[in-house]
Amino acid sequence: MPIVDFRLRPPAPGFLETKIYANPGNRDRYTRRLGFEPAPSAQLQSMELLIDEMRAAGITRGVAVGRTTATLGSVPNADVAALVAQHPGLFVGVGSADTTDRLRAVAMIEECRRLGLAMVNLEPGVMDPPMRVDDRRLYPIYAHCEDSGMPLVIMAGGGAGPDITYTAPAHLDRMLADFPKLTVVCSHGGWPWVQETVSVAFRRPNLFLCPDMYLIGLPGMDDYLRAANSFLSEQLLFGTAYPFCPLQDYVQRFMELDIKPDARERILWRNANALLGLGLT
Amino acid sequence: MPIVDFRLRPPAPGFLETKIYANPGNRDRYTRRLGFEPAPSAQLQSMELLIDEMRAAGITRGVAVGRTTATLGSVPNADVAALVAQHPGLFVGVGSADTTDRLRAVAMIEECRRLGLAMVNLEPGVMDPPMRVDDRRLYPIYAHCEDSGMPLVIMAGGGAGPDITYTAPAHLDRMLADFPKLTVVCSHGGWPWVQETVSVAFRRPNLFLCPDMYLIGLPGMDDYLRAANSFLSEQLLFGTAYPFCPLQDYVQRFMELDIKPDARERILWRNANALLGLGLT
Amino acid sequence: MPIVDFRLRPPAPGFLETKIYANPGNRDRYTRRLGFEPAPSAQLQSMELLIDEMRAAGITRGVAVGRTTATLGSVPNADVAALVAQHPGLFVGVGSADTTDRLRAVAMIEECRRLGLAMVNLEPGVMDPPMRVDDRRLYPIYAHCEDSGMPLVIMAGGGAGPDITYTAPAHLDRMLADFPKLTVVCSHGGWPWVQETVSVAFRRPNLFLCPDMYLIGLPGMDDYLRAANSFLSEQLLFGTAYPFCPLQDYVQRFMELDIKPDARERILWRNANALLGLGLT
Repeated sequence: MPIVDFRLRPPAPGFLETKIYANPGNRDRYTRRLGFEPAPSAQLQSMELLIDEMRAAGITRGVAVGRTTATLGSVPNADVAALVAQHPGLFVGVGSADTTDRLRAVAMIEECRRLGLAMVNLEPGVMDPPMRVDDRRLYPIYAHCEDSGMPLVIMAGGGAGPDITYTAPAHLDRMLADFPKLTVVCSHGGWPWVQETVSVAFRRPNLFLCPDMYLIGLPGMDDYLRAANSFLSEQLLFGTAYPFCPLQDYVQRFMELDIKPDARERILWRNANALLGLGLT
Repeated sequence: MPIVDFRLRPPAPGFLETKIYANPGNRDRYTRRLGFEPAPSAQLQSMELLIDEMRAAGITRGVAVGRTTATLGSVPNADVAALVAQHPGLFVGVGSADTTDRLRAVAMIEECRRLGLAMVNLEPGVMDPPMRVDDRRLYPIYAHCEDSGMPLVIMAGGGAGPDITYTAPAHLDRMLADFPKLTVVCSHGGWPWVQETVSVAFRRPNLFLCPDMYLIGLPGMDDYLRAANSFLSEQLLFGTAYPFCPLQDYVQRFMELDIKPDARERILWRNANALLGLGLT
Repeated sequence: MPIVDFRLRPPAPGFLETKIYANPGNRDRYTRRLGFEPAPSAQLQSMELLIDEMRAAGITRGVAVGRTTATLGSVPNADVAALVAQHPGLFVGVGSADTTDRLRAVAMIEECRRLGLAMVNLEPGVMDPPMRVDDRRLYPIYAHCEDSGMPLVIMAGGGAGPDITYTAPAHLDRMLADFPKLTVVCSHGGWPWVQETVSVAFRRPNLFLCPDMYLIGLPGMDDYLRAANSFLSEQLLFGTAYPFCPLQDYVQRFMELDIKPDARERILWRNANALLGLGLT
């Protein structure tokens, strides 16, 4: 069975400049608070080790999510595209755009398209100024993506914003209602607003949740699992948030979760396969 | 043991014009996402079949909740009263009122009273314009109900509103504080705001929750059950939300829930019995 | 193993004038709704019985939290200090301050310091006028506490405010971000906003949660326990909220909770020991 990891930031050019690699002490502290030990590949910043770890974990495709942020660093879209090109069949590239300037955002989105990147990642909560997902200033950007068929990754969950209201699910709910044809993958799965966020996904079929690092053994997990085993199996995505979580341990603990076999398959690869048009079987 | 189903919309005149019958495809999709198969009586729009299904499920009384909405259709109060009259001892009628005009609302509430209907259902979130439960424009209506002793059903949960904030429990909390003598049954039980909604009921003894279709196997269930087994057993009501859920399967799965016997009895009929003055024993 | 009870209001002078003793019927109703029977010491207002009950429960230190409120009564700081002095080694005193007047608040905080009280309890939600935790009018008080190194207890959870928004975790999150060196213990642990509140503690290391009476067997418990067993064991505190919960039964039921041994030790005493500098071993 293939596994698509919908949030994997490799120790590659561009990614190495972002905070998750530039401040390894902070990252490893997170890793341990989440109940994992840091991955050797992350600590040694080794692509070779990462590829070994992907193989050992059974992860057949990693979605390398770039970013443009004020507080967590940035990855040039060209670097994401170069990574994908250098490792044929191993990564899917997601670019990013600057949400603080709509013209610049559109230019970067078009750059992503030219570079063959599959989606664009926006992180309005960690920009300067920070914005909530339904901020009207973002609407021209969303409109462009909806009109031109560019799906989005949006970080809405975890520490994405100066305070917890930045990840409140109402913002996502309103925005998705206003752009019903826009496909959105929510990194961090709206955590910790789990009960509310899964209900937003219930009413918005264009929303996919990737709880990634905020899933295993954490508060809210039981509600994610109940969603996985009932109405949400077609809108959940597997993600390790690597380098926050080590691949093999994460996969192993994920496999022990009480998820029905068909839902598990959808989460591990079928949903991502359909979303990204990977052609996996 | 009797069972009172506090949310059951039969395939009867009036109800058949509402969206849950007029758009069966949409309804059945919901049913299946909730983990059930559609009831034959719903699909065939057969009162005879429904009565058979009630008997088979052990449901001795169905609370037929009418509605006046902008987006989900409307049931004339006279139709609810006619249904009750045509099936002696089987249904309890709940009428409805237009919340967008306070004079019209009061007139409809008085119509409900004349028709012998037990309660009035308000759904401010699905009106045009939609309102939150504590909208000041609704306060004259609540005042009338409190002063004249008319208990209310209010849909606050699920998709009741343009976005998830319409069902946020703070609105219910504030309104109940302002009308402490008004009895309110909350359809859909405030789902998905489960942790918060059960706490509102903890502090507002005039609030009853009917999680109905958003209970079994869904996110939040564990918190509803913990509430049922601790402080909330006297304020929870059993409801199938038929035609969304089939009666027999719902009852069977409800009986398998980990609820203490005395709490189960209260939820299945004792609370409804006291609330509606049914005289069941 | 020592046990530090971080919320214990003894039947002593000052405390006896507050609502929890002046209105025992209301208190006992709460106790029973929480699944406990009232403690004999509470009903008889007996310090001797309480000390027996502490010994029987294995509670080696009780944090006697005073209060200054508009609706729940007040305990003079001198009374808290007198209690501590009269029972050497048994109680830790937490004073309180009037949050409605910043100069008076500072004077009371300094009074607490002179009296040797360990922390100051603020309850802005139950003052007149009630305030949310991040109300700007409270900021001079917080600034004084941060600058002078006075840790705070803040009641944010349960019925602390006219409606449920007063305990919403965003207020605490914002305030803690603005005062990163201020230590805050949140009484009632942010209940019922459990999923959200534990995430605020995840990102704010200066926040400690004491779910006390809103923990055992209640909605949200599973999320508190997942937090205890993952990232939050160093920021959780044991508390009975006595006289709401009886000591021995509470301790016994707490011991049956599914918490890892090292986390349990931290919650029962190690975290409180470090916070209060008790020197327990």
